[in-house]
Amino acid sequence: MAGIFHRSLRLRTALRHLSPQSPLSWTVTGRHTPLDLHCPFLPSTSWQFAVCSRKLHTGADRPSPAAAPDRLPFSRITQEDLAFFRKILPGRAVTDPDLLESSNVDWLKSVKGSSELLLRPQTTEEVSQILKYCNSRNLAVNPQGGNTGLVGGSVPVYDEIILSTALMNNILTFDSISGILTCQAGCVLENLSLYLEDRDYIMPLDLGAKGSCHIGGNVSTNAGGLRLLRYGSLRGTVLGLEVVLADGRVLDCLVTLRKDNTGYDLKQLFIGSEGTLGVITSVSILCPRKPKSVNVVFLGCETFEQLLKTFQLSRGMLGEILSAFEFLDSECMRLLNTHLKLRNPISDCPFYVVIETSGSDSTHDGEKLHHFLEEAMTSSLVTDGTVATEDSKIKALWSMRERVTEALTHEGFTYKYDISLPVEQIYQLVTDMREHLGDRAKSVVGYGHVGDGNLHLNVTSPAKDPALLAAIEPFVYEWTASCNGSISAEHGLGLKKRNYIYYSKPSQAVALMGNIKAMLDPKGILNPYKTLPDDLK
Amino acid sequence: MAGIFHRSLRLRTALRHLSPQSPLSWTVTGRHTPLDLHCPFLPSTSWQFAVCSRKLHTGADRPSPAAAPDRLPFSRITQEDLAFFRKILPGRAVTDPDLLESSNVDWLKSVKGSSELLLRPQTTEEVSQILKYCNSRNLAVNPQGGNTGLVGGSVPVYDEIILSTALMNNILTFDSISGILTCQAGCVLENLSLYLEDRDYIMPLDLGAKGSCHIGGNVSTNAGGLRLLRYGSLRGTVLGLEVVLADGRVLDCLVTLRKDNTGYDLKQLFIGSEGTLGVITSVSILCPRKPKSVNVVFLGCETFEQLLKTFQLSRGMLGEILSAFEFLDSECMRLLNTHLKLRNPISDCPFYVVIETSGSDSTHDGEKLHHFLEEAMTSSLVTDGTVATEDSKIKALWSMRERVTEALTHEGFTYKYDISLPVEQIYQLVTDMREHLGDRAKSVVGYGHVGDGNLHLNVTSPAKDPALLAAIEPFVYEWTASCNGSISAEHGLGLKKRNYIYYSKPSQAVALMGNIKAMLDPKGILNPYKTLPDDLK
Repeated sequence: MAGIFHRSLRLRTALRHLSPQSPLSWTVTGRHTPLDLHCPFLPSTSWQFAVCSRKLHTGADRPSPAAAPDRLPFSRITQEDLAFFRKILPGRAVTDPDLLESSNVDWLKSVKGSSELLLRPQTTEEVSQILKYCNSRNLAVNPQGGNTGLVGGSVPVYDEIILSTALMNNILTFDSISGILTCQAGCVLENLSLYLEDRDYIMPLDLGAKGSCHIGGNVSTNAGGLRLLRYGSLRGTVLGLEVVLADGRVLDCLVTLRKDNTGYDLKQLFIGSEGTLGVITSVSILCPRKPKSVNVVFLGCETFEQLLKTFQLSRGMLGEILSAFEFLDSECMRLLNTHLKLRNPISDCPFYVVIETSGSDSTHDGEKLHHFLEEAMTSSLVTDGTVATEDSKIKALWSMRERVTEALTHEGFTYKYDISLPVEQIYQLVTDMREHLGDRAKSVVGYGHVGDGNLHLNVTSPAKDPALLAAIEPFVYEWTASCNGSISAEHGLGLKKRNYIYYSKPSQAVALMGNIKAMLDPKGILNPYKTLPDDLK
Repeated sequence: MAGIFHRSLRLRTALRHLSPQSPLSWTVTGRHTPLDLHCPFLPSTSWQFAVCSRKLHTGADRPSPAAAPDRLPFSRITQEDLAFFRKILPGRAVTDPDLLESSNVDWLKSVKGSSELLLRPQTTEEVSQILKYCNSRNLAVNPQGGNTGLVGGSVPVYDEIILSTALMNNILTFDSISGILTCQAGCVLENLSLYLEDRDYIMPLDLGAKGSCHIGGNVSTNAGGLRLLRYGSLRGTVLGLEVVLADGRVLDCLVTLRKDNTGYDLKQLFIGSEGTLGVITSVSILCPRKPKSVNVVFLGCETFEQLLKTFQLSRGMLGEILSAFEFLDSECMRLLNTHLKLRNPISDCPFYVVIETSGSDSTHDGEKLHHFLEEAMTSSLVTDGTVATEDSKIKALWSMRERVTEALTHEGFTYKYDISLPVEQIYQLVTDMREHLGDRAKSVVGYGHVGDGNLHLNVTSPAKDPALLAAIEPFVYEWTASCNGSISAEHGLGLKKRNYIYYSKPSQAVALMGNIKAMLDPKGILNPYKTLPDDLK
């Protein structure tokens, strides 16, 4: 428990650095409105501070650590600035408010900025010119890919210039022997996947947002997704990056080699730093061969301990063909039945598992799966199950896992957490939270990626409930910290979670992050108010 | 070709920064002798400057970029310093010259320092105390693991204090569900492998030096090795690190999670930075399941193009069980026959391939291999081959690849290069070098890791031959740079290759490395004279 108190102390220290006056300065109208906060049902402990007028919000004793800080003293855009950008980006310096609307709001519609300028460069050289100019003029910049982020990292907070990678969408090279792809940062993930599938390869990552998200954004946020268990994280599969630094310098680390031990691996600084250290303009990435055979199994377990034993058995018996091991609990199943009319494909159980295999030989894969299932049933680890090999049935089984989020939206208000824990402990948090909240919550549900130790914890209530929120937090963060877990498994910190960093990183590490930021972006123009906690500003 | 000239220009710029007087100051006797250079047959463009007296070496026009720079103005160890270290490390502050001997010389016996103090801490706290003291006293420190490095990075150049991790050899935790191991930095790789094999897991890396090398050293040098094709690099498998910074601060990034997106991934700074940014004290690493079935195949190909097609076919047909794809040319086979009396297990061919499969089902693996071989033979990609499934025959086939280095030592003098290239081009460098050198070389041989695009290029001669060396370099580096290759695929830069960095990294990247070094180690006490080029000192 010492860990909990120690980390709590760290967070309290951070809170002291937050200006208690921050919310006072917020406005909702005018040219430089700070972020506007909506909160239908989303992450968002922060969004209790709905900004409705200039008046101080009275619903809490102090500002949430997720609330936006005051606007920093960046320059305002002048006519001379606009003239410059229009000259270097003819027809691609957008100021039409209607066109800017969608770039100012995140796709959850939970965060809204008030940028008046959207720049759409096509080349690295143009990005370089933009940043060199912005740095000299002290103009803040919000790099934006497909704008599919979940933590408010992809939209401006105030009037930052939006620098979109949407027109940087060329595939540069593909080596069909090594499977190494190089492309511009604005390529849409699904387009890359389609390009590769024609060539018998796949991208090493796959996301629900693949139809919109950009590979540059994926890399900037170190996106996880559905294939991490099998192909590893982007830190291993991204081989090279081209990045434009805050002052416009181009850092060419666009290596297309599996091995390169010539000095520090600088590209790692930009993977997962959410655009706060540089703008990624090109990516090289190692792509796996397209699997020839895919199977999906849906199983039921009586206890979470049996589910973990099933996971261990699958690693041994499915070995190299195991590509996903996901779970949902009976509360999730109830929501799927109730709200989406999805029928449980097996008998009722406390826990359900979705296992996917991907291999190069359908006969072998089928046999492995058969032996594994036989062993799991014989040893009573699983009580029921069904297998799919056809595309339509595979999709139907996957939907039992993928549509839980959608089912939750029908429950009223949902407090959502994306937690990484040692795999043995991922469900204990759900059990403890359920016990801790008692009748105060409508339901406490858990699902997620067992293979990655990634729990999606959701607490529902008929409507927004500050008392319930106060019971959840900081309990959930302290619980996570006490297990050396991560308070953001795959979504990043962005605007919403930046001040919670101390639950997962010690102060020495956060201080070093501050040093790196100061070294690479001394004026702090790149994606301000994001990733770094306010006490480092 | 523009690339070649541009990069050459960069290197010439670097050379201008080297003091032309460096060799003048070298001595071979006395208490603070700089490195002593031996060169039986090893890497060694540098070692043409054999230091025999105070006289200027007359065999070259200017110092080699690999020659050691002047000793930097670090403090000398005093009796007070010794008293301090003896107090905090009772019985573990070694000054006996006989005991220090082996720690002052690298295992190739190509580089020798003159340290008078070897410290053997057992805990992170002791490492912290040591560095805090050294930083305040401006004493240089040479972190040392198993001392198995190949580029002079693991031994002192002058009188740096040797900080050995040998006594930091505890396994801290192992999670048998997730396969995540945490241990102190001084654990010997082979000991970790044995520990894991008892638990049905393996380490994600394997090296020839596994009986001596430390996991901390492996991580510090981003070791590649034999399993990279299958399990990826340490950048993906290392999940967390504990590091002591130059000033003694302990950076706790010892995360044991597959997913953690809370801010910058600081541990990546220390992977592959060769002890110049901090001393790794603990490691957490994701370990794969032990494969139940291993097969090895030895094949012959008529052309390198057919060999590449065989590689591509193996990726498709062996898919998830392919764990190694290595090659050697007929010159290697001649050396194996001549010097080691190893018999070619198949008929004579211009190229040979060693393929390894590792899987969870021996029947399935055998069938996949059979189908692959049938296809490769039918389509005339390979002309002959043999398969091994028993341990002794597997070892015999592997020795045809692994003993090439040993066979080369019997050829006289060997100039060795460890080059990373796009996989299509790895043998073209051997062909071009052979043509370029003509009769000047005794033989030009190529072998290496096709799967990783890593070529080991070797040029032999009856004796050391400065004219031959001048014909090889900078030709080999310019050729590599023109293909966007790496002049150090897996060995790092250390002392020997630090000034060649500009062939593989642009000056902006090298400058940023210098900024990072200055940020984390402003006095430059950590592993001086290594990794960073002299023009950044």
